[in-house]
Amino acid sequence: MAKIIAINAGSSSLKFQLLNMPEETILTKGLVERIGLNHSIFTIEANGEKIKETLDIGDHEVAVKILLDKLTSLGIIESLDEIEGIGHRVVHGGEKFNDSVLITDEVLKGIEEVSELAPLHNPANIVGIKAFKAALPHVESVAVFDTAFHQTMPESSFLYSLPYEYYEKFGIRKYGFHGTSHKYVSERAAELLDRPIEQLRLLSCHLGNGASIAAIKGGESIDTSMGFTPLAGVTMGTRSGNIDPALIPFIMNKTGHDASEVINILNKKSGLLAVSGFSSDLRDIESEAEAGNERAELALEVFTSRIHKYIGSYAAQMNGVDAIIFTAGIGENSDVIRERVLKGLEFMGVYWDPSLNKVRGKEAFINYPHSPVKVIIIPTNEEVMIARDTVRLAQEQS
Amino acid sequence: MAKIIAINAGSSSLKFQLLNMPEETILTKGLVERIGLNHSIFTIEANGEKIKETLDIGDHEVAVKILLDKLTSLGIIESLDEIEGIGHRVVHGGEKFNDSVLITDEVLKGIEEVSELAPLHNPANIVGIKAFKAALPHVESVAVFDTAFHQTMPESSFLYSLPYEYYEKFGIRKYGFHGTSHKYVSERAAELLDRPIEQLRLLSCHLGNGASIAAIKGGESIDTSMGFTPLAGVTMGTRSGNIDPALIPFIMNKTGHDASEVINILNKKSGLLAVSGFSSDLRDIESEAEAGNERAELALEVFTSRIHKYIGSYAAQMNGVDAIIFTAGIGENSDVIRERVLKGLEFMGVYWDPSLNKVRGKEAFINYPHSPVKVIIIPTNEEVMIARDTVRLAQEQS
Repeated sequence: MAKIIAINAGSSSLKFQLLNMPEETILTKGLVERIGLNHSIFTIEANGEKIKETLDIGDHEVAVKILLDKLTSLGIIESLDEIEGIGHRVVHGGEKFNDSVLITDEVLKGIEEVSELAPLHNPANIVGIKAFKAALPHVESVAVFDTAFHQTMPESSFLYSLPYEYYEKFGIRKYGFHGTSHKYVSERAAELLDRPIEQLRLLSCHLGNGASIAAIKGGESIDTSMGFTPLAGVTMGTRSGNIDPALIPFIMNKTGHDASEVINILNKKSGLLAVSGFSSDLRDIESEAEAGNERAELALEVFTSRIHKYIGSYAAQMNGVDAIIFTAGIGENSDVIRERVLKGLEFMGVYWDPSLNKVRGKEAFINYPHSPVKVIIIPTNEEVMIARDTVRLAQEQS
Repeated sequence: MAKIIAINAGSSSLKFQLLNMPEETILTKGLVERIGLNHSIFTIEANGEKIKETLDIGDHEVAVKILLDKLTSLGIIESLDEIEGIGHRVVHGGEKFNDSVLITDEVLKGIEEVSELAPLHNPANIVGIKAFKAALPHVESVAVFDTAFHQTMPESSFLYSLPYEYYEKFGIRKYGFHGTSHKYVSERAAELLDRPIEQLRLLSCHLGNGASIAAIKGGESIDTSMGFTPLAGVTMGTRSGNIDPALIPFIMNKTGHDASEVINILNKKSGLLAVSGFSSDLRDIESEAEAGNERAELALEVFTSRIHKYIGSYAAQMNGVDAIIFTAGIGENSDVIRERVLKGLEFMGVYWDPSLNKVRGKEAFINYPHSPVKVIIIPTNEEVMIARDTVRLAQEQS
């Protein structure tokens, strides 16, 4: 029995989960926030309770030490020796990493090299890796990339119609994100459908504050809506998704912003927030729309029509689909969004049951039994995927 | 019987066609090139022959005078009095013009006001309008907009997920182009299908050096692939189509170009030209692909897979389609492209006959008789649409 820590490190945060493998049960989970700032917050679940402490945590190494102390002092584990692996979420693996990988000095260098492609995320992920290496130097650690699952995309999917040397010299191509989630739900869908994944055409809708759709054929990603960065694709909480690229200089001209500032607006002040005019949170928007707010209604329609069109688009790419999967915060919980996304897909064999759709946050089929295309809600579990890959690679090693 | 001139004026060119209405027969057509440069070229078809003259044409007014002289001196018409209307293609009508319109001083001012949205095209169109007004002041003239047909799009289709004031203040939204062509072929498709257009869901693929797809429901455009400008949507001859907007500052950083220069590269040095590495002309690319050139093969696959996906996307928007239309240079002539675009759409009821597909430049159904979705090749005719609207509006006037 192996205990594995799954880590998601941000520039001032550290999200953790301790899992028992292969049972995939959660022993504890929590979050350290405001690392490097004063009044840092440490939250951990133990014995069914949530413990929250405010203290000053100067850097990620200190955060890791506190976390490890707590694991034993709260009696969650008896000794740190029980920890057999640490799995780190890493946002960008570029073209270098098409699978999770045991972290060596060389791998760490590789992750640093692709940092240019995710300048806000990879450096933070690296800090997290190094902090655990310092605290537990003898425990194997594994990097699990958001981009790796999409490395199976054919060139016709991932290549932009830009000067070819931009791809060769600068690595400009579609990478796609949320790969760990798309992989988890597609494997789970095959189990639930009781069919070999090799035979399936799956359409995975990961709808959270960030949102992406993936076309998964025979277990491999063949296309996805996010692009070179997580800005592309569908409308998201605060992100615009696709727009006419010619708008960038037009907006620069009109507003006096430079190109990076415009992209910052596209990332942080666009999407549902901009269309609704009041919130990036779909729960707020749903209730306002119900109360008759037209801009809220418009935001719902913009959001769901774009997802609806991606479903058609990827269905065409696979000449039909066997199942549509909804996952992540919105996909798992909002029957309103699922209803709007699914409405009007009978032409491709999607028949869903409004009464079954009234479900939140748990695995469920919501199609009619006769529907050729199944529709499945699957809560995502990126931590389990990280733990699985950590066990697999750490065992290969030993 | 009315004789109508249909005009498409560029900054240094003037394309013309003289039609007999309502028969819609062409009396003559031709082109003036290099206006304002030395060695201008005047080409006109008369009595089954193409006449080409090189002379110096200082401006559009001179070009129009020469054209009108030729019409009588070559015996195409007896007197200029026979001309009952002049129809001008105008690229951008903004939100001001949702139909063709009789040109008044106020309309001309309106066209000037939206010039900001098409700074390369509208000013040239205006020069053409003024040149004819000067030469034939008593003949009614009509403006026919590339954007007008798409003004029926619902807000959820045309609105970008950007700060809402960008739409209100700057007119930033999807406009769409090729409207005159999409309208012509959709009306023609309804005739060929012998069904009221109000009942039809049509998917129009205008594939030329510029390319756009339109979803047409009940005779109205409800979505289209081009956007704020003709850069957006599918891969084109030299245009990139959609890319991740975050690439603009990344490319600026890497190449040292400013934002406008990058957009210029996206417009003129991208698309098929960039992916193939040698040509923007699909005929070259097709023959190189056949000869085993991998980049040419990749260019074909990139081009056709994006169109294929748009078809799925718009089919989803209309919950299925009744007919798919191919038009413009590539759509009318390339069986290779049509084959690749149509392959793998059986899931939505598209069954096409490879032997019928071997056709060039003429109206033809290429689906199997039992196919629920019809596939029709329809050569476009923007000049006829311009002449029709000119007759309609000039007659309303008189």
